[in-house]
Amino acid sequence: MNGTLYGVGVGPGAPDLITLRAFRIITGAPVIAWPAPDVGDSFARSIVAASLRPDQIEIAIRIPMRTERYPAADIYDQAAEEIAAHLEEGRDVAVLCEGDPFFYGSFMYLHERLAPRFDCQIVPGVSSVMAAAGALGLPLASRNDVLTIVPGPSDDGNLRQQIAAADVTVIMKLGRHADRVRALIADMGLTGHSHYAERVTIEGAAFTCPLSDLGDRPVPYFSMIIVQRSTQLAATGDRS
Amino acid sequence: MNGTLYGVGVGPGAPDLITLRAFRIITGAPVIAWPAPDVGDSFARSIVAASLRPDQIEIAIRIPMRTERYPAADIYDQAAEEIAAHLEEGRDVAVLCEGDPFFYGSFMYLHERLAPRFDCQIVPGVSSVMAAAGALGLPLASRNDVLTIVPGPSDDGNLRQQIAAADVTVIMKLGRHADRVRALIADMGLTGHSHYAERVTIEGAAFTCPLSDLGDRPVPYFSMIIVQRSTQLAATGDRS
Repeated sequence: MNGTLYGVGVGPGAPDLITLRAFRIITGAPVIAWPAPDVGDSFARSIVAASLRPDQIEIAIRIPMRTERYPAADIYDQAAEEIAAHLEEGRDVAVLCEGDPFFYGSFMYLHERLAPRFDCQIVPGVSSVMAAAGALGLPLASRNDVLTIVPGPSDDGNLRQQIAAADVTVIMKLGRHADRVRALIADMGLTGHSHYAERVTIEGAAFTCPLSDLGDRPVPYFSMIIVQRSTQLAATGDRS
Repeated sequence: MNGTLYGVGVGPGAPDLITLRAFRIITGAPVIAWPAPDVGDSFARSIVAASLRPDQIEIAIRIPMRTERYPAADIYDQAAEEIAAHLEEGRDVAVLCEGDPFFYGSFMYLHERLAPRFDCQIVPGVSSVMAAAGALGLPLASRNDVLTIVPGPSDDGNLRQQIAAADVTVIMKLGRHADRVRALIADMGLTGHSHYAERVTIEGAAFTCPLSDLGDRPVPYFSMIIVQRSTQLAATGDRS
């Protein structure tokens, strides 16, 4: 009998923000796979490192990060085959996913290759978007607010249109797009309605501030800006 | 010394989709508060019921659900005062929140009343949006997709604009708005791009299907439609 493929969300960074189900599956699976940059450690693995055991087989899926349109399809093909070999031998495989597996995660590339052939279970995880709102003490969306999530690489026209149409906009994956996005928010007169969050649940690395206080701080890839153009915060308890 | 107020996300419904941190705080807090309808059980409490102990003090916050623009401010005022009394006595209070505390949750009404006076910690939770995508086996957003979340009560013009502008739209809290929303999606020619999910992680109550298969099934409040107008799913590993 084939093993089961698990796409396991390990949350935004703090080891205790994984779910009970994720913990059970990660500690029980004979094979653990995780994404990593071509050089260096896996962020997803670091979150659960203290729970892994030497007798678990580990598969590193190394993806170049900064290359424009790098043809990574062959990397996922190869990882899928390596995982498939374990599943065919009856071993469950848990793939560690930063945040949630299906929310801007690379797990979907394994899922599309393996779900047609094997039983696949998704374990949803806490998203960094929710973690950022919590760290900022800033309710994200309420009542009938429209919440839009836009990746930082989106072009200016699209960013502007999305921010203007939503009550709350979260711009993720800022990195080298940060200056351009900040200039656009300033031009829309929304800097004072915006907050910045970075690595919010990583011990000792979290940082949040009003966007107007960000200054010249370098902005990493794992960062976001939350723009609250308007919200409908009002205590009516109405669920009409 | 005052106690700490915790806004604890208990996830989308399955007891094992709470985080390790939520479990530790809920089992350790001397006082537990939870929202409930005016008549009947609390969904948030039911998720963690097996972990609660008789020696924990429980505070029910009963909010009428179906009343148009009910003035619930006095209910939150009263609950905040009841919670404040415990905090002033040095007892920590954990407020249970379906999904995530700051993602369309009523906790924000307590937060705005109590955070200025007491230490307040948010424990982010797994959102039903991520749980639904996982249950459907449907990657939610990838690469530079724009993801928009729109509450079902939004008017037709806004719904149409949001769906047309986003790559992926999640329409939540359908309930009595379901027929109108479905007609609008059909009119946009997007029924074939849409899926339906309901109570996705509640044991024995979960249901998902392509929207075209929904038929006359009654649609509850805890339900959503995911419209994937376009996605950028492609295995390039590009994080540019």
